[in-house]
Amino acid sequence: LHVFKKMCINDTIDEELGRNMNTITSTQNAKVKQWLKYHNRKHRLQDDVFLIEGEHLVEEAYKANHLIELWISETCDATYQDIPTFVSPQHILDKLSMVQSSNTMIGLCKIPHFKVEAKNRIFLCDNIQDPGNLGTIIRSALAFNFDAIYCSKDTVDFTNEKVVRSTQGALFQIPIHVVDLKATITQLKQESIEIVALALTQNAVSHVSASSNMAFILGNEGQGISTEILELADHQLVIPISNIDSLNVAITAGIIAYNYQNKEHA
Amino acid sequence: LHVFKKMCINDTIDEELGRNMNTITSTQNAKVKQWLKYHNRKHRLQDDVFLIEGEHLVEEAYKANHLIELWISETCDATYQDIPTFVSPQHILDKLSMVQSSNTMIGLCKIPHFKVEAKNRIFLCDNIQDPGNLGTIIRSALAFNFDAIYCSKDTVDFTNEKVVRSTQGALFQIPIHVVDLKATITQLKQESIEIVALALTQNAVSHVSASSNMAFILGNEGQGISTEILELADHQLVIPISNIDSLNVAITAGIIAYNYQNKEHA
Repeated sequence: LHVFKKMCINDTIDEELGRNMNTITSTQNAKVKQWLKYHNRKHRLQDDVFLIEGEHLVEEAYKANHLIELWISETCDATYQDIPTFVSPQHILDKLSMVQSSNTMIGLCKIPHFKVEAKNRIFLCDNIQDPGNLGTIIRSALAFNFDAIYCSKDTVDFTNEKVVRSTQGALFQIPIHVVDLKATITQLKQESIEIVALALTQNAVSHVSASSNMAFILGNEGQGISTEILELADHQLVIPISNIDSLNVAITAGIIAYNYQNKEHA
Repeated sequence: LHVFKKMCINDTIDEELGRNMNTITSTQNAKVKQWLKYHNRKHRLQDDVFLIEGEHLVEEAYKANHLIELWISETCDATYQDIPTFVSPQHILDKLSMVQSSNTMIGLCKIPHFKVEAKNRIFLCDNIQDPGNLGTIIRSALAFNFDAIYCSKDTVDFTNEKVVRSTQGALFQIPIHVVDLKATITQLKQESIEIVALALTQNAVSHVSASSNMAFILGNEGQGISTEILELADHQLVIPISNIDSLNVAITAGIIAYNYQNKEHA
């Protein structure tokens, strides 16, 4: 955060509104170059920040105290108390944007590192590849009071723009940790948390009773859960279906989150 | 179908395998130009055909008797009995493809026009815009034995490549009709089908008992169900959630399809 504050010393400060505005008109500006770097995962992880687009996500980031800086187009009159804000012609926002459609508002955020406070309901993501799937899983998990999401290192980066958009801001409200999934499951088992693999095979059981501490493993879209992870599960659960091989993994997660929703702190 | 048969008169026919192969090496070939047209919805509707990519979808189309022609790369040795097949260098398939990743197999299919045989469980899509959402809704509907999906005219085209991919081939097994949604709902009500709007507002009821004939309305990702459609519903049902405004519409559909699954012909 300190770094960003320093970069804004030339800004005009509007004391009354707590506004801190700075007009940028050149695509050669150092700030443009800095933000463009964050289209790349390596730089996001290095600086522990990521970009978000659109009013709804900016609002969610601000409410969660994760918004560091804001970039708006000249046609946008948004102001966020104490957030350094850059104003530019739309074409500069279009350059900063990771999507086709024009956004008048782009935010720079801290990557959330929330502590896992409870372990009643957990999702474990084993190599989920589709950004929309991961984002939707995070959104459903929050909606049904899950406590945390652990992602394997080969799962799509949760600060990826498409993941973030699909979460609809849920990532600012639920702990998401990238972990060695095998070690994490071993640890969770020692804490007496029931590990349920959501299997693709119709050999698995079709019902597991709800208990107070459960973690559900979601597998890769094509291959399902990897063998070494599957072996660690206490149960293999399948949602019985007809006519087709499998459900979409985010749909499986949604049905499971609904059916095993966390009533502990609802 | 007749049109396509005629265009293949120069093919070499391998009687024994029922193969009908034709090598195409130029991107200027009329067939290349014809298939490229089908990236555009207007031409798909005009000729009542669409393109599919990858082995799994081609297999599903073939099994459902909807595969008209097949285009494969030189490295691919797939053959489908009685299906005229074009063989080309990979770069021509890449040109025909609507995705980034290389596919060695692209198929031309008839658009399915299945008759609605039963009306125990129906989804009504009111201006669904995201292709992944519509495709996933179709996939879940099939998995839980729904009988049909009716889409408003402003819903994303179900022969759109991203929709088709998300269905995982389900569109070859369940009737999907594009209709005037208001007129269709009025008709369904006359047939004593209970119309349930999946509302976003938490004012709606949180439970509706399952009955033998139900149709569920799914709304637009941003705006929800339009007022004039909402007014026609017998019930407004909401899935109770916490911490966030709404669930993703495909997740809502998945939970509803699971909870109200059709046991009539399961």
